[in-house]
Amino acid sequence: MVKIKPISGFPELLPAEQIAFNTALGVVKKHFENAGFVPMDTPAIERVETLMAKGGADHEIYGIHRLKAEEGEGGKDMALRFDLTVPLARFVSQNFGQLAFPFRRYQIAPVWRGERPQAGRYRQFYQCDIDVIGDGALALAHDAEMVAIIANVLKDLKVGGFVVRLNNRKILEGFLKNVGLANMEDIQEALRIVDRIEKVPAETTQKNLKELGLGAEGVMAILDFFNTSYTTNEALLALKDMKVNALFAEGVEELENVVQALRALGVAEENFKVDVSIARGLGYYTGSIYETSLTNYPELGSICSGGRYENLAGNFTTKKLPGVGISIGLSRFLIPLLEKGKWPLGKATPADVIVTVQDQKALPTYLEITQSLREMNIKTEVYLEPKKLEKQMKYANKKGFPLAVIASLEELNRGKVIVRDLATGDQQTVSQKELPDAVLSLLKR
Amino acid sequence: MVKIKPISGFPELLPAEQIAFNTALGVVKKHFENAGFVPMDTPAIERVETLMAKGGADHEIYGIHRLKAEEGEGGKDMALRFDLTVPLARFVSQNFGQLAFPFRRYQIAPVWRGERPQAGRYRQFYQCDIDVIGDGALALAHDAEMVAIIANVLKDLKVGGFVVRLNNRKILEGFLKNVGLANMEDIQEALRIVDRIEKVPAETTQKNLKELGLGAEGVMAILDFFNTSYTTNEALLALKDMKVNALFAEGVEELENVVQALRALGVAEENFKVDVSIARGLGYYTGSIYETSLTNYPELGSICSGGRYENLAGNFTTKKLPGVGISIGLSRFLIPLLEKGKWPLGKATPADVIVTVQDQKALPTYLEITQSLREMNIKTEVYLEPKKLEKQMKYANKKGFPLAVIASLEELNRGKVIVRDLATGDQQTVSQKELPDAVLSLLKR
Repeated sequence: MVKIKPISGFPELLPAEQIAFNTALGVVKKHFENAGFVPMDTPAIERVETLMAKGGADHEIYGIHRLKAEEGEGGKDMALRFDLTVPLARFVSQNFGQLAFPFRRYQIAPVWRGERPQAGRYRQFYQCDIDVIGDGALALAHDAEMVAIIANVLKDLKVGGFVVRLNNRKILEGFLKNVGLANMEDIQEALRIVDRIEKVPAETTQKNLKELGLGAEGVMAILDFFNTSYTTNEALLALKDMKVNALFAEGVEELENVVQALRALGVAEENFKVDVSIARGLGYYTGSIYETSLTNYPELGSICSGGRYENLAGNFTTKKLPGVGISIGLSRFLIPLLEKGKWPLGKATPADVIVTVQDQKALPTYLEITQSLREMNIKTEVYLEPKKLEKQMKYANKKGFPLAVIASLEELNRGKVIVRDLATGDQQTVSQKELPDAVLSLLKR
Repeated sequence: MVKIKPISGFPELLPAEQIAFNTALGVVKKHFENAGFVPMDTPAIERVETLMAKGGADHEIYGIHRLKAEEGEGGKDMALRFDLTVPLARFVSQNFGQLAFPFRRYQIAPVWRGERPQAGRYRQFYQCDIDVIGDGALALAHDAEMVAIIANVLKDLKVGGFVVRLNNRKILEGFLKNVGLANMEDIQEALRIVDRIEKVPAETTQKNLKELGLGAEGVMAILDFFNTSYTTNEALLALKDMKVNALFAEGVEELENVVQALRALGVAEENFKVDVSIARGLGYYTGSIYETSLTNYPELGSICSGGRYENLAGNFTTKKLPGVGISIGLSRFLIPLLEKGKWPLGKATPADVIVTVQDQKALPTYLEITQSLREMNIKTEVYLEPKKLEKQMKYANKKGFPLAVIASLEELNRGKVIVRDLATGDQQTVSQKELPDAVLSLLKR
């Protein structure tokens, strides 16, 4: 016998949790499709050279190999995807002529990373991505639409307050160039330092910034800039007032236009915020950047991030494909909430009705009743084991069915059944024929 | 630049095909949940020893390894699942105390097999499995329920005629023992020979059967038994008339009860058939067995198979866990139909409405209109690129939107918009406020 040992980093859910997780996945999918994104389902496996095209050194990629590889078989040229963006770049390059642009796609799927197991890190986890890809150009309003869609998702997930923080990489780059950082490496290092402002003593931040070759004035300018807390309107006013350089001004204008479009899309003021301190993978993004935090669970960090990029697939095609995308890390925030009991669990079955079987002699009648309910799309389980009614009700309560159908042989002979509300104990006797309607009206309440 | 080469055996769909495929997945899921199966989503990756517990030598398993494995790191003890049954066995054994029995689960997910690429064989493909697992015992009526659910799925998929063929392994084993085959190996070999009856000359079949040590009488008995074509009722009558042995009689009684329950569950006579010639992995199944063929596409073989097994997880637990399950090989039949254009493709977008943008100055108004539709759960895309209306309509037609919203600045200023039916060209002018209702009523038609 093989002893079962769970593999760490590969979370797995019990039925009630899985149903809750799937409900959340359904909400995400609904809003992605509501906004006209087309589904994509690339294979889990890509060529290693595709995954490594951008370097890929940062990602702990899982290669695959056939356990029973035969002599001379090369193999080892395939691996599991570590994100959904590289497959998107490969797909769009490969199928360019067959797609309509702007190309809007969503993909909700697991990705794999060979990380060392640690709290909050998974080796398989779901990402829920939307991206819009332009052929040569892509309008800025898409950057706002991303945020509006995410706001619709998070409102509908009923996960409490949330804030999508907005920034623009041109503002960051323009500002840091202006204080005297000449190359991208120093700019990125400065942003890493600034990212830790709240976690380290002020002197450490200053010392680190000075080591980049900045004078006292430059250091102060950076600290001032990143340490200020504004409302969105204040921030935009302040940014517009600053005379920095053309790149900075361009970023501010884009940010202002995104905010205006966000408001037109009905995103509530409490759900977004201009925040010049977010930096988000500066190397990849070239315009708008997003991070999202849950008000009640700040410890989860950013649960949804993304931004604008100048060229999606420069490694695969000569076409210029600018895009903007955002990704919800559903496993990363929902599984911890499920584990801590902070996410409401419903019943441990998708079904609403259990048909109990009191007398095996009348089994065909119980089955007919079951099928009559299923035909009306009433989710129905039938308890087929020859057990006492008491045992059947125990099972029904364990799984949390709202309604039970109960009938003795005598009742069936009169064409009658009982529907019982398992929460209240209320019950009514109806004819077999009326049962589906009776159940539907009970479920509506 | 990395040259993109598709990997054979890993099918990937374009938007319209993917939407069609997802619609089919949704139908399967709907009926699985309609029958009260709980969703399960085990990780793609299992321990190699779990996957190999039953021998596993038949399966071309893909192991995984970290590309950047560090010194001394064991690794290589994990692999991709090749089916959904082994993960089920592992899951039920691992979580036994937390599950309610009979445990009904569905899993719709890809599996991976390192097969050599060939037509009709995939290395990643979707399986859609339902299984019911009993704790110690499991009522026979479940065997009929499986078939009823599959019939509901296939009717709803509108894939034309289909027949679920039913048999019982006890009938096969009882019969073959009776004609003189003593051990399981010979019985399995006889079934393999019989499986090819229609493909090889009669003499070859006879010769092969004789080589198992059977006399002329035994050979004739087998050929008679497996070659006869009966209706379900005729078959049951004929089987009941045969005096073979106790095992055979037990199988016949089970088969008869399953047929009776099927009828009670409303499965149409044309959708199932007792067929004693189906054998289906005799080594694994111990009672009912199923195979399913599509009347219009017999060349696809069995698209949905399964059966009853005596013990799910003997390799992982001392608990006796009898079960019955059935699996739809959705990729295996739907992808070929999509490739051959034999499956109706709808639009290449999930959205029903495209909001065109004629004047970028009024962008906020177009965005408000878009959001007002999305709020009513009307799937809506907004065309944000600054292109001529003609170009926007070309895009809309390419993707197949049913409706377009069109408005000039002048119309917007009067609070009006036009809704156009893109199939007929009919259009009407409505107020911005009335738009969602107007769209809903147009979509209903």
